[in-house]
This record gives sequence, C-alpha cells and structure tokens, in this order.
Amino acid sequence: MKSFRRELWFDIPSRRAFINITPKVEECLKESGVKEGLVLINAMHITASVFINDDEPGLHPDYDEWLEKLAPYEPVSKYRHNRTGEDNGDAHLKRQIMGREVVVAITGRKLDFGPWEQIFYGEFDGRRKKRVLVKIIGE
Amino acid sequence: MKSFRRELWFDIPSRRAFINITPKVEECLKESGVKEGLVLINAMHITASVFINDDEPGLHPDYDEWLEKLAPYEPVSKYRHNRTGEDNGDAHLKRQIMGREVVVAITGRKLDFGPWEQIFYGEFDGRRKKRVLVKIIGE
Amino acid sequence: MKSFRRELWFDIPSRRAFINITPKVEECLKESGVKEGLVLINAMHITASVFINDDEPGLHPDYDEWLEKLAPYEPVSKYRHNRTGEDNGDAHLKRQIMGREVVVAITGRKLDFGPWEQIFYGEFDGRRKKRVLVKIIGE
Repeated sequence: MKSFRRELWFDIPSRRAFINITPKVEECLKESGVKEGLVLINAMHITASVFINDDEPGLHPDYDEWLEKLAPYEPVSKYRHNRTGEDNGDAHLKRQIMGREVVVAITGRKLDFGPWEQIFYGEFDGRRKKRVLVKIIGE
Repeated sequence: MKSFRRELWFDIPSRRAFINITPKVEECLKESGVKEGLVLINAMHITASVFINDDEPGLHPDYDEWLEKLAPYEPVSKYRHNRTGEDNGDAHLKRQIMGREVVVAITGRKLDFGPWEQIFYGEFDGRRKKRVLVKIIGE
Repeated sequence: MKSFRRELWFDIPSRRAFINITPKVEECLKESGVKEGLVLINAMHITASVFINDDEPGLHPDYDEWLEKLAPYEPVSKYRHNRTGEDNGDAHLKRQIMGREVVVAITGRKLDFGPWEQIFYGEFDGRRKKRVLVKIIGE
C-alpha cells in the first residue's frame, strides 16, 4: 500500500470565498504515483469546508446567499460561541451544511469524476492562514 | 489490495426521487470478492446525492417537503445559476444538505451496517440519465 | 493491509446530546497498530451523527438551537414518518445536516488533525442504546 500526504495552504483576504482546488489535488495524485485507491480531502479547520460541486460563477453567490439565510453572521451576539470573543459562530454552522471532507475514487491514476465534478475549498472565516489535508492511499 | 469499480445508471422520470440502492451495492461487493475494506458510493452528478437513512415510506416525502422549504425550486429567477438557462439552482443546494457520498465499512464480506441503515440515491433534477459510482478497495 | 473494527456504545439519558469521542477513536487507533491509512467513524443508527468540530461549550447549544429551528421536533404530527408511532421525524432530518460519518487520515500512527478538530457523536433521539462504528484500514 502506498500513502501520500500534503497540506494545501490558504490565506483568503475576505471572510468568505469558494476556491477550486481540483488542479492542486490532481498534482498530488500525479506525485503520489497511486493508480487505484482513494483520496481524502478535508478542511483542517472547523470553520471551512471541502465539497464537490459545479464551477459555475452564478452558483457560488447562490451558495453564499443561501448559507447566510440558513446561518446568518448577525446578530453576532446570538451565538453563545461568540462569547469567547470570536465572531465566527455562523461559520461553524455553515461548515456543517457544506461538509468537512470529500472522498474521491482513484481509477487508472485519475480522479474518477462525473462530467461536472470539481473540488472546492469553502472559507467561512478567512483573513488568516488555514489548511486543507490531501491524503491518498492505494497502490 | 483489491479494487473494484462500477457505475450504476438511473433515468428517473420525475424531477425528484429517492431510490434504495443497497441491493445493487451488495451485488458489487459480492462480485468484488473483497472481505475487509471500504466502499465509497458517490453521485457522479452535482444535483444528486447518495445518503444513508431509513427505508420508511413516510420519511421520503418528509425529506422532500423539508428540502423544498430550505431550498425552494421557485422562484426560478432568484438563483443566479439559472441565468445559464437551467432551472436547477435549487437542486445544487438540496444536494449539499443530503450529501454527495457515503463511505461504508466492509467486514467479513458484508456491508457493516446498523439495523436500519440503507443506501439511497437522491435525485433532485431528474428526467435524464445520471450515474452513481461504486468504488471498493480492500482485500 | 491491516483492518480493525470496534463498536462504541452509547445510552444517552436525554433526547439530544453531543459527546466528544476523540479519545475513544485514539484508543482504537493505538490498538490497531495502523501507521498509515484511513479511519471511518460512522453512526450505525439513522437518527444520530458523527461529525468533526470544536469542543467549545457555547457551540453545542448553538448547534442544538439551530437544528431545532431548521428541523423542529414539534408539531410531531407534521412528519409523515411519525405516523409509524414514533416521534423522531425531526431526528432523521437533523442527522442529515450534521452528517452520518467522518473519514480521518492516519499519519505516523496518529489522527492527522488540524489544531481544533475533535470527533463528536451527535444524538438526536436518545434514551436508548445506540452504536458508532470505528473501522480502520491501512498498514
């Protein structure tokens, strides 16, 4: 069994953003030499997500607006979590909707994807350095 | 390490539906010959889900009604994604609630399930051919 | 390839609760002897979740209040699922928001975690015995 590990680092200048990380995961896969297996891609922080959806520019503001409706940033004081002095209570909720991680099949040295699947990093409390883990196992 | 791959195809005549795919995944597992490992089952399309819950006929309309409340189909024009000419903006949101994929343990050649766990394909934008990937690794 | 399996049992005295199970998963990992691989941790019941987030005491009532707003327990009669005689329709919905499972990378015999990642069991219909599966594969 082969295994491969890499951290992808982000320092998003805004509070929220969606970044297509598919090319970076493909680089990891190539470097790993794994032909058949699984790749786990997960946010290492608890106010961020990794998810798979469409790289369509209208969809991302739709997600943003929807998440803000389901788990609004304000009023900041309504989240007990924010009594710690943070203001990211909403980000912990948004991340649960969008998910922490994806697992993708590796077949014939490639990400085994449908036609529109792309991997995204979802940032809900940016403006500081945060990481995504890429872990590949297989042979 | 053994690996096995199969696509399950669907052509759901309605916009939305939930289909129990557990027997099809069990067939894949049998054919794979894997005794110990993991199986990944994921929608290959971004307006569909694979999830695990109860095969109870009241629950599925409950899910449908709930998802329609959290991410309504109408008004179609409220989704920026629908400016592409599609009308499935809501389906991209519903899929995030229900999830893209499940990973199930394989123990003693069986899906290692609790008493009521069943695997479902959740369609949110049907009336065309779509696929689910079953990828098994183990030995 | 090594594999390891354990069930963690819970009997939560309240309807809903969040329990940090990270130490129990670490025990499993130690016992498995796996150095590189993946660990799957999933609820074996369909009205419970396993998820990763912060062990911050304000966050848990925030989650509880938020889930109750998105998928309220009452009125019990509004869920078709409850016509079976159960009253846990809401719990099947809450579990979809919080997720069934997590997959965690194992690197150098440790859970490969970011600074605040902790694994939780989320109970949405307690007051009876329920289980979580820990399945480790690797070498």
